[in-house]
Amino acid sequence: MSSITNRLSDLGIQLPDPPAPVASYVPARVTGNHLFVSGQLPFMDGQLIATGPIPSSTTIEEGGIAARACGVNALAVANDALGQDLNRIRSVLRVGVFVQSDGRFDAQPKVANGVSDLMIAVFGDAGRHVRAAVGVNALPLDASVEVEFLFEID
Amino acid sequence: MSSITNRLSDLGIQLPDPPAPVASYVPARVTGNHLFVSGQLPFMDGQLIATGPIPSSTTIEEGGIAARACGVNALAVANDALGQDLNRIRSVLRVGVFVQSDGRFDAQPKVANGVSDLMIAVFGDAGRHVRAAVGVNALPLDASVEVEFLFEID
Amino acid sequence: MSSITNRLSDLGIQLPDPPAPVASYVPARVTGNHLFVSGQLPFMDGQLIATGPIPSSTTIEEGGIAARACGVNALAVANDALGQDLNRIRSVLRVGVFVQSDGRFDAQPKVANGVSDLMIAVFGDAGRHVRAAVGVNALPLDASVEVEFLFEID
Repeated sequence: MSSITNRLSDLGIQLPDPPAPVASYVPARVTGNHLFVSGQLPFMDGQLIATGPIPSSTTIEEGGIAARACGVNALAVANDALGQDLNRIRSVLRVGVFVQSDGRFDAQPKVANGVSDLMIAVFGDAGRHVRAAVGVNALPLDASVEVEFLFEID
Repeated sequence: MSSITNRLSDLGIQLPDPPAPVASYVPARVTGNHLFVSGQLPFMDGQLIATGPIPSSTTIEEGGIAARACGVNALAVANDALGQDLNRIRSVLRVGVFVQSDGRFDAQPKVANGVSDLMIAVFGDAGRHVRAAVGVNALPLDASVEVEFLFEID
Repeated sequence: MSSITNRLSDLGIQLPDPPAPVASYVPARVTGNHLFVSGQLPFMDGQLIATGPIPSSTTIEEGGIAARACGVNALAVANDALGQDLNRIRSVLRVGVFVQSDGRFDAQPKVANGVSDLMIAVFGDAGRHVRAAVGVNALPLDASVEVEFLFEID
């Protein structure tokens, strides 16, 4: 894997300060070769960029951008947990995507691609992960998307 | 464990071609002794066999059959990921079951038993797993059930 | 870690008999250094202490107490799975919290703190975990909360 920091730079991504958890838990935990990252919300510059259900309050396209923002925040959290060395990430194993959805909205995969495509852009083939993407009727702070992550690390 | 292929045959189960992911992710990832399988939908012969919420659009019994179909697809995915050797599966560790539900529908466990009972039928005691079964108001492609899996492998 | 049994006693927590699964699965599975615990419901003395969506049927505060009850049940299950030796728990890695929610209810983190704070009270810093907390429109037996767990063990 080439330098992830360079890859992020090529993608025009500047890692934010890792968002603080909104409650009594930690943003990341390492166990063996695995790094778990808590459910991330689509914060950008301290504000949620997408709230309410998709598609009535947020479009599918905006939802995808929000899912990507969750991914950027996860990378910031991972970077912090790994001593500022994202090259320790060997692969992305799993992402769990919860999409705030109107009843029977059925394009969660399109929304979730926002974060999946980011992981592939950043990590190449090592970014290809398993995924569960589902709809839910409510999320913390009324966010439109929440995404949790499991990385494989050195 | 006796030959899983024989067990499937005894159960009258013929593995389909593994369903292609409906978006930017992979169907399976191996890490150490673990095999993760992405959220599976109840496809059979390329068609979803159950759509809409339970019980208004799909009965509990049909939901159980749909959950079982998710399990058959997961076995097809696992078989493919393990070089056509399901005997490498040492046990089923966890299944996560998302049931598209009308508000306050409360029999998700009955629906989820469709896939849990399949795993026990196929793998015997090694098929006994932990489970989280929950209701959701929306799923990809309007499927009535989505199930993700974690297997322990040799 | 000081004796967890003493810590529970100091907290006034008496472990119940581990609740039986409500269907075809097992309450716990060990794999390597990991202990998975199935989704727990807020049973106390054999009764659910909170049903229906939050906040219309159950208050946020009651939801937090229910989440804590899920945690007590998980400790009972873990104790049973670990040969009555909770000192084998090295840390709490992850909790997944599903909160039965009215549409757009957005305080799932407050509810989930009921179980997160319990884990920190019992295990100290080793109880600090990653978390995904989401809203759902329906849960088994109409429970207001369901929580699943991943522990790191010796």
